[in-house]
Amino acid sequence: MTRLDEADGHIVVINTFTVDPAKAEELLRVLVEGTEQVVSKRRGFVSANWHMAEDKRHVTNYAQWRDRGAIAAMLADPEVRDHMLRAGALIDRVDPIVYRLRRTFSTPE
Amino acid sequence: MTRLDEADGHIVVINTFTVDPAKAEELLRVLVEGTEQVVSKRRGFVSANWHMAEDKRHVTNYAQWRDRGAIAAMLADPEVRDHMLRAGALIDRVDPIVYRLRRTFSTPE
Repeated sequence: MTRLDEADGHIVVINTFTVDPAKAEELLRVLVEGTEQVVSKRRGFVSANWHMAEDKRHVTNYAQWRDRGAIAAMLADPEVRDHMLRAGALIDRVDPIVYRLRRTFSTPE
Repeated sequence: MTRLDEADGHIVVINTFTVDPAKAEELLRVLVEGTEQVVSKRRGFVSANWHMAEDKRHVTNYAQWRDRGAIAAMLADPEVRDHMLRAGALIDRVDPIVYRLRRTFSTPE
């Protein structure tokens, strides 16, 4: 389970992959595998949350990291790059955007 | 606080607003106000999580809803539309994408 809380100070990266819908499930498998085996074990990793768009044109990760240095180290890691190349062969484009969470509204659960 | 959990069955809408960085803080204010006063009180609302991109070119909401009917009713609501028009005057474009959360990885906290 992932918690979103303005007070946690995490850096948020929303990474949107645009894909041929026929390849979307394969792409998700590759990305989940890379997260499980490599990215989630890197320093500063907080969470990854993989989403499939209803029309299967997008596969998107809502990711949290402790700091910018951890993101830079992860991106420079050869094992991470290998997984990225596998994913890159399946996609049309990728749009990563770096954020801070500013305001959360949530119903009581 | 918002929780992301594959088992909750929520519909996720990630709504990315592209904006002139000089207008980004004003846009965030308008969108947070609309969420607080109107959208968060609508049936089926679960959460809204407003993010500011580090380069201020994007303001993005990670939103959860109970079902598609609740989203349709919210979009048809005249009060919601009034707030959308206010936000619409400030933005270059908006890209809403509808998802299901498929797989979450999270460090223990």
